[in-house]
Amino acid sequence: MSSLLSVAIEAAQAAGELQREHFGSDLSVNEMLQYDIKLELDVRSQQIITDIILKHFPDHAVLGEEGSDGNLQSTTEWIVDPIDGTVNFFYGIPHFCVSIGVKEKGELVAGVIYDPIQKETWAVEKGKTPTLNGKPIRTSSRAHLSDAVVTVGFSKSREALEASFDRYKRISVEVRKTRMLGSAALALAYIACGRLDAYIEEQLSEWDIAAGKLLLLEAGGEFLEQPSRTHEGKLFICATNGKIDLTEYL
Amino acid sequence: MSSLLSVAIEAAQAAGELQREHFGSDLSVNEMLQYDIKLELDVRSQQIITDIILKHFPDHAVLGEEGSDGNLQSTTEWIVDPIDGTVNFFYGIPHFCVSIGVKEKGELVAGVIYDPIQKETWAVEKGKTPTLNGKPIRTSSRAHLSDAVVTVGFSKSREALEASFDRYKRISVEVRKTRMLGSAALALAYIACGRLDAYIEEQLSEWDIAAGKLLLLEAGGEFLEQPSRTHEGKLFICATNGKIDLTEYL
Repeated sequence: MSSLLSVAIEAAQAAGELQREHFGSDLSVNEMLQYDIKLELDVRSQQIITDIILKHFPDHAVLGEEGSDGNLQSTTEWIVDPIDGTVNFFYGIPHFCVSIGVKEKGELVAGVIYDPIQKETWAVEKGKTPTLNGKPIRTSSRAHLSDAVVTVGFSKSREALEASFDRYKRISVEVRKTRMLGSAALALAYIACGRLDAYIEEQLSEWDIAAGKLLLLEAGGEFLEQPSRTHEGKLFICATNGKIDLTEYL
Repeated sequence: MSSLLSVAIEAAQAAGELQREHFGSDLSVNEMLQYDIKLELDVRSQQIITDIILKHFPDHAVLGEEGSDGNLQSTTEWIVDPIDGTVNFFYGIPHFCVSIGVKEKGELVAGVIYDPIQKETWAVEKGKTPTLNGKPIRTSSRAHLSDAVVTVGFSKSREALEASFDRYKRISVEVRKTRMLGSAALALAYIACGRLDAYIEEQLSEWDIAAGKLLLLEAGGEFLEQPSRTHEGKLFICATNGKIDLTEYL
């Protein structure tokens, strides 16, 4: 294991422990948005992660949902979502995670997704088989939509919600089941280990998907990303197990 | 605690242990349906539950998703869903449960929902405060749709899927988040303890909702049920925390 990956795991698990301790208790809210929530614990989690990264690599850049730190000129960038699934966390739904991806010269080289409730750690390095709690994983072998469980996200704006619905209606009658679980990073991790077969969402940010994208690609999946048609600066993504074809639904 | 409730807990936890042991392993499928799956483990789970109930109460009726047993003339009926969320279980998504409700002369008097992965036991008796792992629970105090997280189900037929979509589209833009988690009984349990605020589904069976209905009502929630408009013999339900008004979406 590279030192990048081992530091990513250390940082993700440290932040996750804090989250597990506070899960189910009263939480301090920094900002209530129409389709989202920002917690004080998002900020504290990112600080824990940043401190661990910069302790090991003081010259690297840390770019997170809650701000940036370190040497922002560095060619090594850590892409951090301290709590992916903050609404779930706040409401007490046990489905959220820490996501940390590492880029060197713009290319993803390592990633970790940690679910502190299930104590599940997905880890990946470029060119190697990804793991879940140390065991090798790969995407499902399901090749037909009729066998697939597809997860969808409805993002954070009315435009994206409305843009998504007709597509999901068309997909939902073809697949076995549709799910909306509330964490983009865990959706990608779940596809990487064969629990889900595909994921589409209109508006995501790089911190939502950095670790999950590398995890999915190295596990045999496919990952399409393009500029969101409903929100400038956000990403539209379609992730699959590498066998299912969703082209006609894009 | 009544002996009915203690037996319900014993039975739910015994079946749940079997499920936890087998979760993530290869599973024997009895039947693959377009929008559902029947597992051999559904049948084994119901047998464990039935054996425990009839050991204590040999003269009671046991009515389950996987068939009936005991004295079907009894005025005490146990309504059993051995695995609620079978598709999740089969695909490796850690969100499913055992649901056991007890009726006397047609009236719900006790219920248990057990999530074997989170080791969470919701328990209720008529007229008493329900509990989660022994601690009293109640529904959330959220009264506005804009604060609510609403879970929706898309049932098991194309008609129900299509009938549901326009409603969910209208709801989704008004609420904070929409979720589709894949277990009706856990959706009701989550509303009862304040993790979710409402749940609507087109086509359910009595075993999906018996325990959850009593749990929700005793926790301060509201529960509307009526014959499904899209499937004869099934139920349309709208469950809320007792504060949120979804009347205009029914």
